[in-house]
Amino acid sequence: MWVVPEKEIAGLMTPEAAFDAVEAVFAAMASGEANNFPVVREAIGHEDALYGFKGGFDKSALNLGLKAGGYWPNNQKRDLINHQSTVFLFDPDTGRVSAAVGGNLLTALRTAAASAVSIKHLAPEGAKVLGMIGAGHQSAFQMKAAARVGNFERVIGWNPHPEMLTRLADTAAELGLPFEAVELPRLGAEADVIISITSAFEPLLMDAHVKGRTHIAAMGTDTKGKQELDPALVARARLFTDEIAQSLSIGEFQHASAAGSISDGDVTAIGQVITGNHEGRGDAEITIFDGTGVGLQDLAVAGAVVDLARQQGKAVEVEI
Amino acid sequence: MWVVPEKEIAGLMTPEAAFDAVEAVFAAMASGEANNFPVVREAIGHEDALYGFKGGFDKSALNLGLKAGGYWPNNQKRDLINHQSTVFLFDPDTGRVSAAVGGNLLTALRTAAASAVSIKHLAPEGAKVLGMIGAGHQSAFQMKAAARVGNFERVIGWNPHPEMLTRLADTAAELGLPFEAVELPRLGAEADVIISITSAFEPLLMDAHVKGRTHIAAMGTDTKGKQELDPALVARARLFTDEIAQSLSIGEFQHASAAGSISDGDVTAIGQVITGNHEGRGDAEITIFDGTGVGLQDLAVAGAVVDLARQQGKAVEVEI
Repeated sequence: MWVVPEKEIAGLMTPEAAFDAVEAVFAAMASGEANNFPVVREAIGHEDALYGFKGGFDKSALNLGLKAGGYWPNNQKRDLINHQSTVFLFDPDTGRVSAAVGGNLLTALRTAAASAVSIKHLAPEGAKVLGMIGAGHQSAFQMKAAARVGNFERVIGWNPHPEMLTRLADTAAELGLPFEAVELPRLGAEADVIISITSAFEPLLMDAHVKGRTHIAAMGTDTKGKQELDPALVARARLFTDEIAQSLSIGEFQHASAAGSISDGDVTAIGQVITGNHEGRGDAEITIFDGTGVGLQDLAVAGAVVDLARQQGKAVEVEI
Repeated sequence: MWVVPEKEIAGLMTPEAAFDAVEAVFAAMASGEANNFPVVREAIGHEDALYGFKGGFDKSALNLGLKAGGYWPNNQKRDLINHQSTVFLFDPDTGRVSAAVGGNLLTALRTAAASAVSIKHLAPEGAKVLGMIGAGHQSAFQMKAAARVGNFERVIGWNPHPEMLTRLADTAAELGLPFEAVELPRLGAEADVIISITSAFEPLLMDAHVKGRTHIAAMGTDTKGKQELDPALVARARLFTDEIAQSLSIGEFQHASAAGSISDGDVTAIGQVITGNHEGRGDAEITIFDGTGVGLQDLAVAGAVVDLARQQGKAVEVEI
C-alpha cells in the first residue's frame, strides 16, 4: 500500500492535474464508464460528528475506492480543521488496498476543479469579471482554479461576514487581479461568472440581482436544507450538475425540484457537455452548475496524486 | 496511522481475543451503544467482483470505521484468496484515520467468534457432539472457536464435496477430537451443536434430520438467495441473530420471513442474551443463530489486534 500523507499533497498536486482528473471523471460518468456508490453519512452521536463514505469505480481510469471521514465541529478547539477525510484506493483486479491518501487538501482541490470545469465549458464568451460569493477556506482554491480557465480582468466579491473579505483580496492580489468588495446586486449585475461557496441555508443571490449572460457555479450546497440561490433564478436558467439524482436531493436544485418548478429532465450532467453530447450554454442567458461533490472526484484526484508521489519519491510503501 | 499487515495477524490475534471482542460488541449493539451503518455492496462490472463497505461505530469501545473490500472470484488464478478486505479505524474524537489493518484472517476469526458466542450462550447443556456442515476455508476456524467454548467429545461432518472432508478431519485431530464423516440425517440426529458454513443456495439440513435438543449456528448465508436450512426447521426453532434487519433481508431467516412463517418479533438479537435481557434457550428444543456478519464485528477484532500489535511492537506507524 502506498501512503501519501496530507503534508505532501500541497507540493504534489496542482490545479492543472486536479482539473484534468475531474474533467476526465465527469466524462466517464456521462459515458457510463464510472459510477458512484450510495453515499453513507451518519450522525455518530459523539462530538456532534457526521461521518461516512463516498465510494465509486471508474472503469476507464481503473480508480476504485472511497473517501472516508466527515465533519467534526469541535476540531477547531484542537487546532485541527473540522472536515477530516482520507481516500483509500483499491486494485480493481484483485480487491487489495493499493493506497491511502490524506484527503483534506484534495477535497478543496477537487471541489475547485469541478467549478473550473463548469466555467471552461459553460462560461459566456468573453467573460471578464469573476464574482465570488463566500470568503471561507475554500474560496481561495475556487478563485485560483477559476483564474486558470478564464481570462478574468478583475474579481468582485461578497461575504456575509465582511471582515473575511481579505482572503479574497489577498488571493486576487496573488493572481495579479484587482479586487473590489461589492454588494450582491452589483455582483450579480457585473459578474460574467459567479462562484458561490458558502454554507448558507437561505438564498443569497436573488433572481433580480443577475443581469446579462452569466454562468453561476453553485458549490456550497451538499446537504438537505442548504441553499445559495433564489429558486426563481434556478427556474429561468439552463441547469447542469455533476450527478443529477444527488443535485435534486441534496444539491442546490433540491429546492426548485421540491417546489415542482424543475424536474429530472431539466438538468444535464456536465459530462454530457464535456463529451460533446450536449451543446452546453447554447443561447441560454444564464447557466448554473450545481457542484454537489461525488466520491469519484475524490478517487480521481487521489489517483493522480499517488502517481505524482510515486514519480517524485514522496509516497511511502507499507506492507499490509 | 498504525498499519498492521495481514501477515502479522495470525501471530497476534487469538480465538480468545476475537471471542471477547465479538461478545462485547454484540452486547453493545443490544444496549444501543453500537450501531452498524448501511451496507454498500456493488457489482463493479470488472473481474466479476463484488465490492463494498461495512461500517459502524461502537461508542463503548470507541471503535469507528469500516471494512472495505469484497469478492474477486478470479483471484485464485493469481494465487490470492477470493475474499479480500482491509479494515480502517478512525479516531472518533477527531475524524482522523488511526489504523489500517489487513482484514482477511480477521474476517474468518470474527465469523468463527460469532458462532462460538452463540454456542456459549445457546448450546443445550451437556452438548458432546459437534456437527460440521461445510469443509471450506472457514470451517477450520469455526471448529477451533467452537471447541474453545464447548466440551465436545467428538466431531462429525458433511460436505457437498466429500474429498474436502480431510480439512475437518485434520482440524479435529489438531484439537485431539475423533472425527467421522457422516450423511446429513445422521449428523442432524447425533449432533448437539451444528455449525453450517457453506455457500449453498438450497437448504441442506432438513427439518426431519434434526432430533433432540440442538443448537444450530447458520453462518453461511449473507446474500439474497443463499440458504442452508429447511424453512420448516427455522419455523419450529427459537431464533437468534447478530442483526435482525439484516437477518431477515439477506441472512438465513430471509426465506422463512419471505414465506411469512416468521416475523421481526420472532428473532432475538444475541446481544439481548449476552446482556441478560433474554433467557436464551429456555425450554426450546432447537435454537438457531443466524450469523450474517456485521461491520462492528470487524471493527471490534481490528481494534483488539491494533492494541496487541502496538504492545508487541508489530504495528508500523506511518504519517498520513
